[in-house]
Order: sequence, then structure tokens, then C-alpha cells
Amino acid sequence: MTVSEAENAAMSRAFELAARGPRGINPQVGAVLLSPDGRIVAEGWHRGAGTPHAEVDALSHLDGGDASGLTAVVTLEPCNHRGRTGPCAVALLEAGVSRVLYAVDDPNPVAGGGAERLAEAGVEVAAGVRRSDGETLLDGWLTATRLGRPRVTVKWAQSLDGRAAADDGTSQWITGEVARADVHRRRAQADAIVVGTGTVLADDPSLTARTPDGSLYPTQPVPVVIGRREVPADAALFRHPKTPVLAGGRDLPEVLRDLHGRGIQSVFVEGGPTLASAFVTAGLADEVLVYLAPVLLGGGRLAVTDLGVTTIADARRLSVTDVQHLGDDLLVIAHPSPLVEGAS
Amino acid sequence: MTVSEAENAAMSRAFELAARGPRGINPQVGAVLLSPDGRIVAEGWHRGAGTPHAEVDALSHLDGGDASGLTAVVTLEPCNHRGRTGPCAVALLEAGVSRVLYAVDDPNPVAGGGAERLAEAGVEVAAGVRRSDGETLLDGWLTATRLGRPRVTVKWAQSLDGRAAADDGTSQWITGEVARADVHRRRAQADAIVVGTGTVLADDPSLTARTPDGSLYPTQPVPVVIGRREVPADAALFRHPKTPVLAGGRDLPEVLRDLHGRGIQSVFVEGGPTLASAFVTAGLADEVLVYLAPVLLGGGRLAVTDLGVTTIADARRLSVTDVQHLGDDLLVIAHPSPLVEGAS
Repeated sequence: MTVSEAENAAMSRAFELAARGPRGINPQVGAVLLSPDGRIVAEGWHRGAGTPHAEVDALSHLDGGDASGLTAVVTLEPCNHRGRTGPCAVALLEAGVSRVLYAVDDPNPVAGGGAERLAEAGVEVAAGVRRSDGETLLDGWLTATRLGRPRVTVKWAQSLDGRAAADDGTSQWITGEVARADVHRRRAQADAIVVGTGTVLADDPSLTARTPDGSLYPTQPVPVVIGRREVPADAALFRHPKTPVLAGGRDLPEVLRDLHGRGIQSVFVEGGPTLASAFVTAGLADEVLVYLAPVLLGGGRLAVTDLGVTTIADARRLSVTDVQHLGDDLLVIAHPSPLVEGAS
Repeated sequence: MTVSEAENAAMSRAFELAARGPRGINPQVGAVLLSPDGRIVAEGWHRGAGTPHAEVDALSHLDGGDASGLTAVVTLEPCNHRGRTGPCAVALLEAGVSRVLYAVDDPNPVAGGGAERLAEAGVEVAAGVRRSDGETLLDGWLTATRLGRPRVTVKWAQSLDGRAAADDGTSQWITGEVARADVHRRRAQADAIVVGTGTVLADDPSLTARTPDGSLYPTQPVPVVIGRREVPADAALFRHPKTPVLAGGRDLPEVLRDLHGRGIQSVFVEGGPTLASAFVTAGLADEVLVYLAPVLLGGGRLAVTDLGVTTIADARRLSVTDVQHLGDDLLVIAHPSPLVEGAS
């Protein structure tokens, strides 16, 4: 199916509209309704869970809701399920839309199938229009939807020999300013920052993302604390601009499901060794960031404790995707290796 | 003092002659005697401890040993002490040499001073002629002489989280082929390879430097074993092309002094964790090579054990001078950082 210049321009507009919506449990979606001669007749976008979907929002701006002969240009496949709002595929059908273009297939097995439903009813459907742009817009949401949980980055700082601290527990400035600034920049890009109660009790961290001059980044990750121990009422994290989530002692998959349900698409696991090791052991580390300081410490304060690996064949194999020099430190970025067994 | 074209050419020739001599406790030295019109009258080089020095070797080729009016071009400052041979400065004086050019000052406080002695006796002396080339030739010997011991490289392979093996002791192929080939290439460049008795008893290593096809490199490091435990008579290292040195339980400075006395200018410390940690703790690691495999192991088999560091301020600070990608592995090359205290 040929996509006209007007339809292509309408998709660009739909991306702009989508970006107005919030990141969260629901995807950011924009929709534009075009007349047969290519004029924009109505626009809509999704404003977050519980509010009308983009297509319904756009239809609501039409006189009498009549979309006969119009073309709908949407950034995500119209949904096919009845959640808190009705299925958009049906709304478009009932309004009389004759042609639908969209960028990204809905990966949700419950919500998907809208395109098929429209086509069966005789509507012209073009899928994958500007797909790559659409996937870029929805990156975090698509990844989290495919994983069924937020994408997890586990970060730790260690000496070259794998220690998180000296034997007396001191660890200040293991890594330098440039590495610490990099950590804060990445915190600001994550939806949540996750620590264990041990770290809260030991360090009383603010869990904010701060620029090198100490001011807060405009976006802040939700602070999440995992663990059974009680968090003191005067802990610094309670002064965080986002309300903290105290996840208690629940297991990690459960915690991640809960965070996903709160619209959190990415989490940055920051500490300490017990929690980092638990995420790696559970196979829940989608990305590992190791800030390596050029020091040797020896001793017993390990950055990674136990991973349930007893023999070398069971080692957690990673692929190093990048090594960055950050001041005197190194940042090793790694991802789990695909299993070699069965590979061609 | 102007250095003529003929003298410059004579120094090149002296470097060639020097390189014929063996690396060892004594420096490689070459000497050329030139007539006033720039012709080479005699040549000499040093063939190893207990044999004549280069200058004396060259003089021995003259009729009646008469060097009246000749110019001596030598790669190292003529010595001023009487060791197993007489002082070369005196030999040159007595033979009637009127001009002496040399590349590198003798760093040995006992042997040095030859230039001054010659100048006081009225001989024209030019020091530092092609100094940089001379220092390149004598690199290992100069470093060892300045340190008063061989230069020490401490190498280990570890997982990203600092483990040398899994909990059951298995460690085969933590690092890959490219990294292992790099280790063998560096073994071949060292004068000695040093391991602890623990490594010998656990792994029975051959301690040879082998090419990827399994053949021996033409130069092999002397195998050195440190530790109190007895080495089995059928250990593989006794089939090494070089005679092993069993250093026993002596302290590390003493072992290094002994090796220096055997003409060993560089040692490659390969294992295991106890020995590597002992060299670092003693401040005897001039270079650290960490082969980092992109795996996580957790558990208790640490590549570095204890370094006597109890608080972060006492961390052994290094400077990373290079990070190399070797197949899937990383090689981090680091050197001790100069102390910051007192720096401007």
C-alpha cells in the first residue's frame, strides 16, 4: 500500500502528539485523522492510564463523532481489548474510518490483534509505517512489555580486584568525579533506582540524580528499597522528590512486576553487593555496569558476593559491549551472553 | 664537543657489537677504536661476566696494545672499578687513547666515575653520544641496576568480579585463546617466570613460553618457584629447557636479589593469588597485568587475597596505562601511581 506525502507528514505529527503523553505503564501514543484530500481533521494523544486512548481522543473532536471516509494515522497498532476504555479498533470501525496506518505492532498479547480486526471489517490497513521511529519513541515501553517487567541495569563500583570497600568498610571515592557524574546521569535516565535496606542503613543515600554542581536533574528516578529491615523514618530518601517504594522482603520477580504495574520501564540497581548479586543470580540483570577504579584493596568486602556458581562451566558469561575511560577509572558495560548451546 | 660522521658511524657499529653479547648480570657493551682519520682500527664487545670488558677486548686486538692518539667509541661509560677485570678507564689511559665517546652513563655507583677519571688525565671525553639508542639497548639492565633488582611484572587472570576460579577450584578457560597467547608472548620476553609452590602442586605447569601451535619460543624464561612446600621430583617444570631455581621460603626482596645476581633483569610473576598478593603488598610490583574475563563467578576463590590494606586511604593506587581487547577478554595494564602527597 502506498503511503502518501500527507500521510507521512501526519505520522510525524502523530509522533509529536504521542510525546506529549507521560511515560508509564501505558505507551505514549498519538493519532491524527485525515480527510481524503490529506487535510488534518482531528488530533489526539494518550494522557496516561485511565484516560481515553489516542484514537478515541481524536475521534472525540469530530462533529457527531462521524469519521466516514477518513484515514487514521496512529503511532501504535489500535488496541483490540476492552480495558478501562473500549477497544480502539472498534471505535475506529464504528466511526466509519476507511483506512488506518500505524507505526508499531502492539506487542501485548491481550491488546494486540486490532489490525486484523480492522482488516476483516474491510478497512485498508498499513502496518509498520515509520516503524523504526515509532520503536525509538516507545523503546522503554516495548522492552518492558516484551520482558513483562522493567529493564534492569545493575551497577556497582569496585577496585580492580573486585572489592567494594576496604576491610573497615570505608569506600569513599573508590571511583573519581567523572565516574560519579556518569552514574548520576544514568540515574536520571532510569524510571527507578533500587537499593537494599543494608545500603540505606549504612549510607543513608538521597537516591537523587544530581548534576556535578549538586542541583537535581529535571527527571528523577523513583527510589525503591528492597529488604526486610526497617527503614528509619528520618532516612534521606524520604526527602526525595518522588515518593519512595518500600518493597519489603518480596522476591525480585514480584518486586519487578509491582514496579512494572506502576509504569516503571527501567530500573537502575545501585546497591549494595548483596542486592547486585541477587539480581545477577536470578538472571534479572539485562545490563551490567562495572565502574573499575585503578586500585587494589584485597580483603573481604567484595562487590559481588555469591552467585550460586560452584563450577566454571556455570560462570555467568557476559559480553563486553563497551569500555569507557572515565577520568582515572574504567566503565565496563556488559550484557548477558546468549547461550552458546544450540547456536548455529 | 663535535662528533664527527666517522665517530657517529663507529657508535652504530659499537651498538651492533654490544648486541652480540649476552643479556645478564653484566651490561651488553661494544667498543670501537678509531684512527685520527676515522678508520676503524679495532673492535670489541663484552661476552659476559668474568670475560674482558668491551674496551679491553678491543685494545687486545692492537699491535703491542698501543692506542696512542686513537679515539675510543663505547656504548657505556668505561668503568672505574676493579671487578673480575681491571678498570677500563685505566686500561684506555695506559694504552694512550686521546679521546673517548660513550652513549650511556654507568648508573652503578661502584663502577661509575670512569669519565671523570679520564678527563682528569687530560683525555677528551664526550658523554651521551646517541644516549637514547644506548638506553634502548640497555633498557632491562639499566632498570634492574637502578632498582637494585629485576623489574617485576605481576600478572593474573580473573573474572570481572575478581575471582581466579569457581568455588570447586575449576578455572580452565576463564580467559580465551587470544589472552593466553598474549601471556605466552610476554613470558618469552621475561628473563624469569615466578610461581608459588601452591601453583606447582595444584597445576603442575610447564612454565614454558609456547606459540599458539604449541612449539617453544626461542627464548625461554628461567622457571622460579617460591615457597616452603616441597616440589615433586617429577614436576613438569624440571623438563623446562632452563634449569629451575627453587627459591624456597626466603623473603621476596632476598629472592629478587638472588635472581638479579644471576643476571635476571625482568621477572614475570604468574601465580597464584597468594604470591601475586605478596608481591603487591611488598611494593614489588612494577607493572600489573590483569586479564579480565567477561564472566561473573562470585564465591571465595579470589585472584587477590590480602594486601594488608585496612582502610580506603591505604588502597594500592595504580595508573591504568593501557586497556586492550583480547578476543572477548580485556587486558588492563597498570603501574603503581606516584604518591600524591607532596605533589604540586
